[in-house]
Amino acid sequence: MSKTPEPPYYAVIFSSQRTPGDNGYGAMADKMVELASKQKGFLGVESARDEQLGITVSYWESVDAIQAWKEHSAHIIAQEKGKSEWYESFSLRVCKVEKQSFFKM
Amino acid sequence: MSKTPEPPYYAVIFSSQRTPGDNGYGAMADKMVELASKQKGFLGVESARDEQLGITVSYWESVDAIQAWKEHSAHIIAQEKGKSEWYESFSLRVCKVEKQSFFKM
Repeated sequence: MSKTPEPPYYAVIFSSQRTPGDNGYGAMADKMVELASKQKGFLGVESARDEQLGITVSYWESVDAIQAWKEHSAHIIAQEKGKSEWYESFSLRVCKVEKQSFFKM
Repeated sequence: MSKTPEPPYYAVIFSSQRTPGDNGYGAMADKMVELASKQKGFLGVESARDEQLGITVSYWESVDAIQAWKEHSAHIIAQEKGKSEWYESFSLRVCKVEKQSFFKM
């Protein structure tokens, strides 16, 4: 789970339904997380997937940081493979985080 | 996956790590989704859980709608059971969705 700073900051919510089979997806997903983590303005990422749906939320300092990651050359290649091979469908939402709270037992 | 209207609207991102065992969690989670869906201003909900993490994102017309759901009596009981029994840890973020896009193969 991500330890994000005090809001405001930004979140990208990516929900997706996969096509059957791996087809190189797992390795590319790991690589994308590694690359994104090195981007300026990256604050964290959380991911969960079950048989129905996958949700990945990444956190960013600014809309500019999100835009720079969107335009990263290796990420563009992954986005294209995503549309041609890996995803049956997806939604992508860019949000401004206004409030947060944390709980630990 | 949720068919949300044109932004702006709101999202609540709830990420959690469960305690071991079900302990009535599954039934209560289903009931909460059913109840939330009937709330004024509810736009949709998406959920995924794997062995590391669960992420539930609910979508709402306004901050007021989120606040009303937070204060719903049955939901308050669930929140208390969540802290005492079901969740090892969680984070909750309230966000304003500014942009969205959808893809279907």
